[in-house]
Amino acid sequence: MDLIDSHMCFGGEQRRYRHTSETLKCDMTVSLFVPHGAGPFPVLWWLSGLTCTDENFVTKAGAQRKAAELGMAILCPDTSPRGDGVADDEAYDLGKGAGFYVDARQSPWAEHYRMETYLRTELPALAEKFFPVDMARQAISGHSMGGHGALTLGLKDPKRYASISAFAPIVAPTQVPWGKKAFTAYLGDDEAEWMRHDACHLIASTEGELPPILIDQGEADQFLAEQLQPDLFKAAAIESGRKIDLVLRPGYDHSYFYIASFIDEHLAFHAKHLGVTSSPPRGRGLR
Amino acid sequence: MDLIDSHMCFGGEQRRYRHTSETLKCDMTVSLFVPHGAGPFPVLWWLSGLTCTDENFVTKAGAQRKAAELGMAILCPDTSPRGDGVADDEAYDLGKGAGFYVDARQSPWAEHYRMETYLRTELPALAEKFFPVDMARQAISGHSMGGHGALTLGLKDPKRYASISAFAPIVAPTQVPWGKKAFTAYLGDDEAEWMRHDACHLIASTEGELPPILIDQGEADQFLAEQLQPDLFKAAAIESGRKIDLVLRPGYDHSYFYIASFIDEHLAFHAKHLGVTSSPPRGRGLR
Repeated sequence: MDLIDSHMCFGGEQRRYRHTSETLKCDMTVSLFVPHGAGPFPVLWWLSGLTCTDENFVTKAGAQRKAAELGMAILCPDTSPRGDGVADDEAYDLGKGAGFYVDARQSPWAEHYRMETYLRTELPALAEKFFPVDMARQAISGHSMGGHGALTLGLKDPKRYASISAFAPIVAPTQVPWGKKAFTAYLGDDEAEWMRHDACHLIASTEGELPPILIDQGEADQFLAEQLQPDLFKAAAIESGRKIDLVLRPGYDHSYFYIASFIDEHLAFHAKHLGVTSSPPRGRGLR
Repeated sequence: MDLIDSHMCFGGEQRRYRHTSETLKCDMTVSLFVPHGAGPFPVLWWLSGLTCTDENFVTKAGAQRKAAELGMAILCPDTSPRGDGVADDEAYDLGKGAGFYVDARQSPWAEHYRMETYLRTELPALAEKFFPVDMARQAISGHSMGGHGALTLGLKDPKRYASISAFAPIVAPTQVPWGKKAFTAYLGDDEAEWMRHDACHLIASTEGELPPILIDQGEADQFLAEQLQPDLFKAAAIESGRKIDLVLRPGYDHSYFYIASFIDEHLAFHAKHLGVTSSPPRGRGLR
């Protein structure tokens, strides 16, 4: 885990690391915001959307201010395996930048595209070993394809996360074009396997206690009707006796301007469930 | 002035416009944050640094949250003329993305590189005509080359701006490599002309009342010793009986992570001098 970049930011540090992933069989970058102080810090996982790397959220969401105030770390993985030897597709919604947080089962994807195992097993172990984070206090969030990732990974490991949130998530990948295309390529035609990665199916089928779930959706999102349909998740939750919060934002689209506008609310939501009770001392250089 | 992009952001709108500049003889883009409400709004000009366009500050600084709260518009011009017919250089610090906020006087630059006139005359007139801004309440800020721009344009028109601030500005372009290279190319070897665009010279030579000036500088800035040297500006101010504020930030570098960490303080500084006294109603969609 090599530190390749670091910038002081709101009294803490915005860092970027590179490591060789055994799971993905390639070099990966990971971004980490570390607040001021000694740690270990409660940690929010952020999963990004189609075309993104680990850096989009870091540069565009403006989350560090509130995270510094709350004393929370934010861990941002990349969205797919990377490198010259990794299979890719010309389309923006398949291949690099579009890993969909699943383990692929077919050629040419299966060799490297194992984002589920990377994020459920390899990267948490590395984070615990190398980062000043408290793995007993994790939460997860994401945007669009990364919202699908946050919901599905969160529902697969409900005891790991204190809370789950998502901005404009793909909640029903088995029913919408983005998900059908990716799942056909990565998973083949086994319907049971598709269902393992569908948040609507998972909330209906997961037993036991679930963490609090917050879904955020802009009403002027250009992908709302065709790709996102958060009402499907709300309905699946209600049908299975689960309570989730779905907050609609009139006028907001799918962009990072929308995420930036509401990320503080999500950080406060996660802080509450992570048991973050007060602000830490401000970092030096902040008045 | 064509609206080419708009995103709802913190209850307001982040807009981007395109227009044909008569001064620069090319098409230019301009970004504008407009807070919620009817306006006209007090307006902060933001001038960006080398390699930037009108979009870097918009996506990376996280300024919209505080600007929305204060009811301030933020107007971000590009940093040079643009387009296939515009002279350029392979280096990052000359030509496109490096206009240095002066009117060039030599070939091949003089035909298009007239950023001083564009920003002092053409764009203010267009802003007054097309944007919901109150031209009686303007302030100016910028970063690095744009800090040089904010200081020099502010000192050339001291009655136009209620306040001036700069992050890591080039305060003495006639004395440092970036400025010498650009001024040699754009202005030739007329020393008096160079001095017209040197903030240290301007603060010593401008008569009458000046707006309050805030200089912000990261102490871990990789360009501090060779290119920036804010102490030269502080010394020039003291020698000429002017008071300026120079705030040093231990540990901070030249990046937008540094700007994001302190932009709220600059917005509050400008709001105070613009006479912004209270928060406007929050926009819809904000809780």
